[in-house]
Amino acid sequence: MRAYASTGRRLLLAAALALATLTAAPAPPALHAQGADPLPSWNEGEPKQAILDFVEATTDRSSPDFVPPGQRIATFDQDGTLWVEHPMYTQVIYCLERVPALVKEKPELKDEEPFKTVLTGNKEAIAKLPMKDLEKLLIATLTGMSVDDFQEQVKQWLAAARDPRWKRPFTELAYQPMLEVLRFLRDRGYKTYIVTGGGQDFVRVFADQVYGIPTEQVVGTMGGTKFGYDGNGKPFLTKEPKLLLNDNDAGKPEGIHLMIGMQPYAAFGNSTGDQQMLEYTKAGEGRRLSMLVMHDDATREYAYGPANGLPETKVGTFTQALFDEAKKDGWIVISMKKDWKRIFAFEGSGQ
Amino acid sequence: MRAYASTGRRLLLAAALALATLTAAPAPPALHAQGADPLPSWNEGEPKQAILDFVEATTDRSSPDFVPPGQRIATFDQDGTLWVEHPMYTQVIYCLERVPALVKEKPELKDEEPFKTVLTGNKEAIAKLPMKDLEKLLIATLTGMSVDDFQEQVKQWLAAARDPRWKRPFTELAYQPMLEVLRFLRDRGYKTYIVTGGGQDFVRVFADQVYGIPTEQVVGTMGGTKFGYDGNGKPFLTKEPKLLLNDNDAGKPEGIHLMIGMQPYAAFGNSTGDQQMLEYTKAGEGRRLSMLVMHDDATREYAYGPANGLPETKVGTFTQALFDEAKKDGWIVISMKKDWKRIFAFEGSGQ
Repeated sequence: MRAYASTGRRLLLAAALALATLTAAPAPPALHAQGADPLPSWNEGEPKQAILDFVEATTDRSSPDFVPPGQRIATFDQDGTLWVEHPMYTQVIYCLERVPALVKEKPELKDEEPFKTVLTGNKEAIAKLPMKDLEKLLIATLTGMSVDDFQEQVKQWLAAARDPRWKRPFTELAYQPMLEVLRFLRDRGYKTYIVTGGGQDFVRVFADQVYGIPTEQVVGTMGGTKFGYDGNGKPFLTKEPKLLLNDNDAGKPEGIHLMIGMQPYAAFGNSTGDQQMLEYTKAGEGRRLSMLVMHDDATREYAYGPANGLPETKVGTFTQALFDEAKKDGWIVISMKKDWKRIFAFEGSGQ
Repeated sequence: MRAYASTGRRLLLAAALALATLTAAPAPPALHAQGADPLPSWNEGEPKQAILDFVEATTDRSSPDFVPPGQRIATFDQDGTLWVEHPMYTQVIYCLERVPALVKEKPELKDEEPFKTVLTGNKEAIAKLPMKDLEKLLIATLTGMSVDDFQEQVKQWLAAARDPRWKRPFTELAYQPMLEVLRFLRDRGYKTYIVTGGGQDFVRVFADQVYGIPTEQVVGTMGGTKFGYDGNGKPFLTKEPKLLLNDNDAGKPEGIHLMIGMQPYAAFGNSTGDQQMLEYTKAGEGRRLSMLVMHDDATREYAYGPANGLPETKVGTFTQALFDEAKKDGWIVISMKKDWKRIFAFEGSGQ
């Protein structure tokens, strides 16, 4: 009876301690400690080791670089960092493919530019549309409807749309190694944010499903909304053609301050549009991590950017200057070709 | 030995179940289940019961009104809802009291309006300053400095400043009954947000300390920032005199969409500036809770607003029309006099 009571007490104590640990830190660091690799789609090398070391250093209470859970913020660019951005940003494809439905709702648009050209499907002609026509396209497909209707439109499109190369839903084109980084950081108490030049409302539609990132942790290019009432007096919000913040370049740290209010401890990008976010992150006190995804794998994904002697493109510009800054300031460059065992979940583990 | 093993197994199982519960839901609902009152500073009555019933209905898995944890959003106005707003918003006091330090930094301002009048300390004259002078005051005290410097200025002021009536730090003037509501909601898996007409960056400085609300869950009137580099090439953000969103009236649901992206399930306000937020909340599907704090206790706090036959004021306007809308649409009106056992933590429990 004495042994029984004492064992019971010991087990209860162990449970209580486990509970205390769990409530103090968001997640048990058991996975890594038990030897399971939190980044199985990464090859061994500097980038993988940099992530493991950073997380260990900032989440181990005995480390001089320990960061309290409330301050563990990690930000991720989306296009080209978390999923494919070539040959065209997914949101631009959405805007183009939305045109037929739009013209069905507003037939008067079918003879108006840029809708007329977009409806022909002529890619060269579409690529030549002037900036003011592109703006008109964005305004027509991304604003003027209620917030709820917009979400529904994007949802329906995502379910049916297929990317031109892999013939899969765009939501399957997230990079498996980066999904592992997101999960690993969250398992260690980090709050993961998307900080994208894409539309905040657009990315919110699928961020949870694809990345496990909730709506309120999506920072993107922000448009205004307008509060009003429908015919039954029920309030709703309409998406307005009013730009609040262009979440690119300097807009990224500005958007981070607006939406989060703290400097990230880790940031991931892939282009000059992420430069200021990576600088801002790295400039914080204590140990910080800035990483750049380099697209150098034409076989498994795409190769672009002059850092690797590759052709420069309009989408996802990774200049030699950015590469040099990364090397100088201790950012880590990820080679998709060398550092990633596999690119997409649908490829299987490749083992 | 058999009993020993079986007891051990049972206890481990219980611990495992406890762990599973804890990881599934953010916090154990033990307090309430064990009979402890989560709202001890509230008198029994409709408002207290409405909060208890709402939380029970939306967090009990077997309830038809169950809300998944990720969607449990509750929003709180600050001035007059979470802390004292009379006779003047705390942030306005800050701007006024900041003037001497500002003039010390920029002596050329001492003969310029409105700084000249503010420096006299003449309350009647200050109250008569025209709107354009007030705007100049806000711009001079809330913008032009780095984000970090601003935080430091507010922190230092908060440590030294005392409110005119209770002679206490403003941070002690939070309403104890509302602090209990915040904690109770969080204990049951709600994410609590401040949605204030006050400056987002201002409120962020003390939101965690006073309300347990982290920086990223403060939605307020938003100003732009500008990214730049200091003399050593280190990046920093400067607060700009550019209004991105006036988080009052219709701006509250617009700010909620911008920062959270979801309709709240519960919202708390105290004035016409909160009307649209309360409408927006109540308009959502399923069970929602909209509540209004009514200031009708001149002895323990202040009494104002015509709903109770009280004088209307510029600060925290609670019109008869708002009162009528609340009654018609099933919002719950909280009487500070009747429903709150005590107002402030420093009063003691009053038992």
